[in-house]
Amino acid sequence: MAKEFVKNVTSMQDDFAQWYTDVVTKAELIDYSSVRGSMILRPYGYAIWENIQKELDKQIKATGHENVYMPLFIPESLLQKEKDHIEGFAPEVAWVTHGGEEKLTERLCVRPTSEVLFAEHFKNIIHSHRDLPKLYNQWSNVVRWEKTTRPFLRTLEFLWQEGHTCHETDEEAHEETIRMLNVYADLCEEFLAIPVVKGQKTEKEKFAGAKYTYTIESLMHDGKALQSGTSHHLGDGFAKAFGIEFTNREGKLQTVQQTSWGFTTRIIGAMIMVHGDDRGLVVPPKIAPTQLMIVPIAQHKEGVLDFAYDLKDKLSQTIRTRIDASDKKPGWKFNEYEMKGIPLRLEVGPRDIEQGQVILVRRDTGEKETVSLQDLELHIHNTLNDIQCNLLKKARAHREHQTTTVTTFDAFKNELTEKGGFIKAMWCGDEACESFIKDETGATSRCIPFEQEKLSEKCVCCDQQAKHLVYWAKAY
Amino acid sequence: MAKEFVKNVTSMQDDFAQWYTDVVTKAELIDYSSVRGSMILRPYGYAIWENIQKELDKQIKATGHENVYMPLFIPESLLQKEKDHIEGFAPEVAWVTHGGEEKLTERLCVRPTSEVLFAEHFKNIIHSHRDLPKLYNQWSNVVRWEKTTRPFLRTLEFLWQEGHTCHETDEEAHEETIRMLNVYADLCEEFLAIPVVKGQKTEKEKFAGAKYTYTIESLMHDGKALQSGTSHHLGDGFAKAFGIEFTNREGKLQTVQQTSWGFTTRIIGAMIMVHGDDRGLVVPPKIAPTQLMIVPIAQHKEGVLDFAYDLKDKLSQTIRTRIDASDKKPGWKFNEYEMKGIPLRLEVGPRDIEQGQVILVRRDTGEKETVSLQDLELHIHNTLNDIQCNLLKKARAHREHQTTTVTTFDAFKNELTEKGGFIKAMWCGDEACESFIKDETGATSRCIPFEQEKLSEKCVCCDQQAKHLVYWAKAY
Ligand SMILES: [Zn+2]
Ligand SMILES: [Zn+2]
Repeated sequence: MAKEFVKNVTSMQDDFAQWYTDVVTKAELIDYSSVRGSMILRPYGYAIWENIQKELDKQIKATGHENVYMPLFIPESLLQKEKDHIEGFAPEVAWVTHGGEEKLTERLCVRPTSEVLFAEHFKNIIHSHRDLPKLYNQWSNVVRWEKTTRPFLRTLEFLWQEGHTCHETDEEAHEETIRMLNVYADLCEEFLAIPVVKGQKTEKEKFAGAKYTYTIESLMHDGKALQSGTSHHLGDGFAKAFGIEFTNREGKLQTVQQTSWGFTTRIIGAMIMVHGDDRGLVVPPKIAPTQLMIVPIAQHKEGVLDFAYDLKDKLSQTIRTRIDASDKKPGWKFNEYEMKGIPLRLEVGPRDIEQGQVILVRRDTGEKETVSLQDLELHIHNTLNDIQCNLLKKARAHREHQTTTVTTFDAFKNELTEKGGFIKAMWCGDEACESFIKDETGATSRCIPFEQEKLSEKCVCCDQQAKHLVYWAKAY
Repeated sequence: MAKEFVKNVTSMQDDFAQWYTDVVTKAELIDYSSVRGSMILRPYGYAIWENIQKELDKQIKATGHENVYMPLFIPESLLQKEKDHIEGFAPEVAWVTHGGEEKLTERLCVRPTSEVLFAEHFKNIIHSHRDLPKLYNQWSNVVRWEKTTRPFLRTLEFLWQEGHTCHETDEEAHEETIRMLNVYADLCEEFLAIPVVKGQKTEKEKFAGAKYTYTIESLMHDGKALQSGTSHHLGDGFAKAFGIEFTNREGKLQTVQQTSWGFTTRIIGAMIMVHGDDRGLVVPPKIAPTQLMIVPIAQHKEGVLDFAYDLKDKLSQTIRTRIDASDKKPGWKFNEYEMKGIPLRLEVGPRDIEQGQVILVRRDTGEKETVSLQDLELHIHNTLNDIQCNLLKKARAHREHQTTTVTTFDAFKNELTEKGGFIKAMWCGDEACESFIKDETGATSRCIPFEQEKLSEKCVCCDQQAKHLVYWAKAY
């Protein structure tokens, strides 16, 4: 029975891309629709997003930000006000040209991001240094016209939050950029059990319109990297284009310094590819919509269901607990909830009840243990904590294993081909080398990590004087 | 000082529309942008929506529904599958015709509502009676290409939730339609203090594609009605068009019965126009982002600010409390927070501290009372409850006052012109009379109320045999 079910998921080794597709559909995270490149977030997928959202929203508010909501549409003329920005986004926006039966006099783009809308609003509401800082965030959908798409990782439309802030000084904007990058990094590590490398994007890879972009990069099970959150210091580019000025403490007109930062449903793709295995999804307990699934054994026997439901009611007070009392076979249920990555399974049958115990099975290790009813609740809490820690530990170990240091271009190419993962190598800072590496190997610069090391004096590509240590990888 | 500030808001009597515009902008609920007909929800406006959303989401989940997320775009061919639906919505949808630089082979409409997307998905996932009922909801933005717009009431884009469900039988779908209408009605009365009339829309006014539409209708301060939430029994119209079939308990193929229901940011407009006054907004305590505003008096005096902050920390545990310790004058602060409709103001100065008391001022009645520190927290809770009840009571009284029963068409026209509000009158059921009344008086049929009365034997318009009592009104 177990085998029967698992057969449906392609093994990771055989075909990672197919494994991913199998997992997102069979674990019922998403469904496809007739809208090309868009996905339907099904209840299980959306519940995971709600948990991420709830935690992140708490952090965003705790750091002093307020939620707002901006329009979905951006008039073409507004989008064009900041030159780098429009250049970067023009190829990938969707255009509304008709409203009802009428042709519009000006095209509207469906927001790919909302810097220009925020800039226009900030100009209206900021006048004095007393109005600063302005710390805003919005939860919304955005659209980017992608050619090839994959659920969560790259879709025409996705859900995210985008923070937008204005500050008096460059230094304050810098601190904000770092602060929110750290919020993202902590969320990834503490809640999603995904270890990240923090660093700065190169000029080539930074956000269109930013002064600089900070990023957190994570590593998937197949050795590819995934950009997991970005935080941009926008400098005064948008502010100058839109005239966002304030009277400073000396009574003089001054332009604001801005930041923006975003975190998306993409992270669910990372969660799948970092923790999943050949049995399906593995969801970290802190983010799991269901942390504990109760499966009654021999449930037709007298007292079993009553006992199981009582247990559910009791445990539900502190643990997100569900019960499957359907007439499906226990074997089917075991597989189903392993596929869905539910952290813990509790089995209870007539003999267990007699002996005052239950069976707990961990999704991460498959370990099975008998636990006395007396210690049950505390034991479950401890085990959930342990699973959470173990997932992060495993992910860290995997990343260490797939991070390689190289000092020659030959080694770069060899390691990338043989092992994949992160390649740490020195770079001269020249965009020509960055492009050459991409063209030759398929790897892009992921970031200039905050934790710099000096592996060698020379650029791995051109042998000129090295400026930075860079993380390189093939990426989603 | 007080007068100085209030001068900025047009009086309701003088110009209700201008009063409304003044309040939504000066209370900082919204801002305009260069996107025609769209609004920016500012922190205060969005926080009110978040509170409504939180409560409604709880109710939606408590009634067994799960949240999902559907795509923003609908291919034209998909929208056309249900004939009444496309006919109703075609004149008011926005069309995407280009993605990046390319012209699309098929136009995509920006969802005005998501029945067809849900129908397509339901067809994929429903096979057996064991898959039923399916009880889904989504929180999203939708777009309707309106010619004339007004903040909250009618905008190109708005935020809402839309529920979509599938059932085995007509009866179950009917029960669901009623259940969710009641959830909306209770939310309006208990949280927003807005009394509603429950009833059925006429054939002319029902949702495009529905079998029938239930509605809750509320009455604004200027005597106009506002449709505040709708719940549709869709029958099997979409299900047949999309082929949503299941194997029933007898092993035969059967078509599902569907419902859909929606509640929008529009309700914030109702809240403003039901409770607001010439001093600005009045927000019901249960929905207020800030329930209590502390204004320190003579705050430069030693100990005042410390005392006020201590009070804030203590009260914040059970009451949504803020403090304004800025260097603005108390008079300015009083007006500002009256404008924003904060239910209770607490004033505390050096003499109060000496005497172990504070001053509380109610926004709804303006009443001022001195309260001893000992009973303070309990007293505030009681007062907030009292404000909540009083707002509903006042709104009910206003509605009673502006509801008139008529039996002749002359009386209909007179009462509507002189008094406005709801007109209760009998109707023969003929659409010709409904249209005639609208053309002659500007009033539309708001609903056939569930609570029927027999005012007369004859239709108020044509003198034929009357079928229903109907609520008529001019409406937003
Ligand atoms: Zn180089
Ligand atoms: Zn008639």
